[in-house]
Amino acid sequence: MVVARRTSRDIRSESRLDVLHAVLSAGETTRGAVAASTGLSAATVATVVGELIVEGILVETKTTAGRIGRPTATIAMSAERGRVVGVDVAETYVRAVLFDTALAQLAAVELARDEHDLDPDSVVDAIGRAIDRLLAQERVSRGAVLGVGVALPGLVQGDTGVSVVVPNWSWHTVELDRLRERVGLPLVVDNPLKVIATAELWLGRGRSHTSLVTVNLGTGVGAGIVLEGSILRGATNSAGEWGHSLLVLDGRRCRCGRDGCVEAYVGVPGIQQTLREIAPEHALLALDLQRDFIIGMAEKADEGDAAVSEAIDRTAYYLGSALADLVAVVNPEIVTLTGWTVWRLGEHLLPATRERLLSQSPGGSAQGLEIVVSDVGTSSVATGVATIALERFLADAGLLTTRIPIAL
Amino acid sequence: MVVARRTSRDIRSESRLDVLHAVLSAGETTRGAVAASTGLSAATVATVVGELIVEGILVETKTTAGRIGRPTATIAMSAERGRVVGVDVAETYVRAVLFDTALAQLAAVELARDEHDLDPDSVVDAIGRAIDRLLAQERVSRGAVLGVGVALPGLVQGDTGVSVVVPNWSWHTVELDRLRERVGLPLVVDNPLKVIATAELWLGRGRSHTSLVTVNLGTGVGAGIVLEGSILRGATNSAGEWGHSLLVLDGRRCRCGRDGCVEAYVGVPGIQQTLREIAPEHALLALDLQRDFIIGMAEKADEGDAAVSEAIDRTAYYLGSALADLVAVVNPEIVTLTGWTVWRLGEHLLPATRERLLSQSPGGSAQGLEIVVSDVGTSSVATGVATIALERFLADAGLLTTRIPIAL
Ligand SMILES: [Zn+2]
Ligand SMILES: [Zn+2]
Repeated sequence: MVVARRTSRDIRSESRLDVLHAVLSAGETTRGAVAASTGLSAATVATVVGELIVEGILVETKTTAGRIGRPTATIAMSAERGRVVGVDVAETYVRAVLFDTALAQLAAVELARDEHDLDPDSVVDAIGRAIDRLLAQERVSRGAVLGVGVALPGLVQGDTGVSVVVPNWSWHTVELDRLRERVGLPLVVDNPLKVIATAELWLGRGRSHTSLVTVNLGTGVGAGIVLEGSILRGATNSAGEWGHSLLVLDGRRCRCGRDGCVEAYVGVPGIQQTLREIAPEHALLALDLQRDFIIGMAEKADEGDAAVSEAIDRTAYYLGSALADLVAVVNPEIVTLTGWTVWRLGEHLLPATRERLLSQSPGGSAQGLEIVVSDVGTSSVATGVATIALERFLADAGLLTTRIPIAL
Repeated sequence: MVVARRTSRDIRSESRLDVLHAVLSAGETTRGAVAASTGLSAATVATVVGELIVEGILVETKTTAGRIGRPTATIAMSAERGRVVGVDVAETYVRAVLFDTALAQLAAVELARDEHDLDPDSVVDAIGRAIDRLLAQERVSRGAVLGVGVALPGLVQGDTGVSVVVPNWSWHTVELDRLRERVGLPLVVDNPLKVIATAELWLGRGRSHTSLVTVNLGTGVGAGIVLEGSILRGATNSAGEWGHSLLVLDGRRCRCGRDGCVEAYVGVPGIQQTLREIAPEHALLALDLQRDFIIGMAEKADEGDAAVSEAIDRTAYYLGSALADLVAVVNPEIVTLTGWTVWRLGEHLLPATRERLLSQSPGGSAQGLEIVVSDVGTSSVATGVATIALERFLADAGLLTTRIPIAL
């Protein structure tokens, strides 16, 4: 078996990446704290931080007197190196977010998309328009943008272009070329599951846990998996397609064409179907857009609507069962929930989901398991893919060896 | 996030372990082949092999003239360093296998167990008797046994002792102490899923693939998972409990107490249930022991028994569906099948299982996926746990730093 082997030179490169991630995670920190969190020696951290400051990636922000009289310098990412854009492409919207090079969020533009229009051209166009509008609105020159990251639903593979699970989004390499041309800036494209895992790893619970699963709930559902501090990509960049694993053998038809997938029960159309089974004439079912439906569910639940409450309970039962399967196989330390269903409906769903998850997880697999709403926030996809774009820029500039295996 | 960091010293220890595993995998090999398969430099391999020969772990077996006239030495594990025993404890039997220190199988003793007797004392006693009989039969003195490895169904945790998923096998630390006392030899205990993964990693498809899932089918079912050349243990050593993930929400009652688990459909009692649903009066259902039932299934299938053929087809449908879930989440390069159901029924099950698996795996997750019967053979559990015992002996003797995190 041949496994990639780390040489002394790799270790030096990885030290730089680890220091960068430690500073990124912390916001502002000290050399001592970086040494503690990375496990690197103080001497190595001092050397690497010095190099990264010379290269303009890190800055010293302030110096405070230490307890024994020696001043301690605070370090942070250099915010003014340039700008990075992260684009979250969902069925229902395109959201472009502007970041500085410390990955602080500066501004965002969101274009609502007609979720019924799945024409690749219109998706490419919406991405391009969102970026254009963002840069114009914030008066950022294109030259100042070091990189753009785009998270596309579906599987993204480096060698074969983009293949998308969503029916009718039959993207191929040609669409990717068209996207690259339309954006006209250095571009990385990745799978949203890998992107939310990146965000959770560097800016969320990955800062305190070495193995985690982060689950995205929206129109589609899926899982980002982090093991021993690394994102699980899988043999064909397809790991985490839990949304299309079985919940009910021969159950509801899923939009992927198979029957009984998790997504057919806990994706938004699945939640709509559950409400339809309980109350076929419910007013929420007349709403055209999925986001309005989910907002309505939260409001009606607060008002004590019995059918909605039962639909939420059933959804929690489905979700807890499906999460238990993930916990049984992967056995992570923590499960975090993200995505727009969670931001609207999370507090209603979480207690019953947790209860079902814990009762369904076999043996000791849920022992000590935490299940929480992700604290990365509503821009987790944009933030994650912007992180990848920044890392790619630093790698292309020869400033970093990246662990990112996908380069598009 | 704190991740274990490799130092130069770790790299030296890991080089020794990698060389050892390379030689173990190859049987007989050369320094050059070890360098090629490990990615280590020729100089490092020469140094490490030299040290391991001095310590009596490796031997030079023969020297052949090279093409350019320089002789090439063949190296192998030293077989005569001592003996190692691997014990496979299943519901239906206890099998103790004697190995030399090159992990060649020398002899085996198998005691049939009454699968209805789940009393811990009788299990401890059966393990002890199997080892005693093996050593007596082969005239091996206890002093020559460097280590004994025992694979116990259930979850094995270093700090809390053994907890077992099988109902009525309520093993605790006290039973583990009793086992240690009864065996009276250096003992390691591990979970069969981790053990079959070890065997597949070092002696099976792990030699040619970096990510794999190996699935064990017997009374119970489960998956050993190897990612980037390492065994996935999980936060509580519970990874791979795929047998107790859902196949059918609210489906058949599983012996773990939950409903609809994979095991309730593709474990042997599940296959019996499937046949019962098709032909309640079938003669095979009158057999008392599960092994006789599986042997009978293979025979009747060969004879063209329609009910048996349908039961096998349905089982393949269940198995392919459940494997697709594992592939969706983990996205391995290869799936291998092992366990006594597979050895008897594998050729009948495999074609329809493969077809269902490939059609059910979402997106590109099954692209290029192989699914095969494991070639580790019928002693994979004993071999895997003997490998762990040998590695533990070498680590305890200070000859190796092991990656094995579980030490019991
Ligand atoms: Zn699906
Ligand atoms: Zn079960």
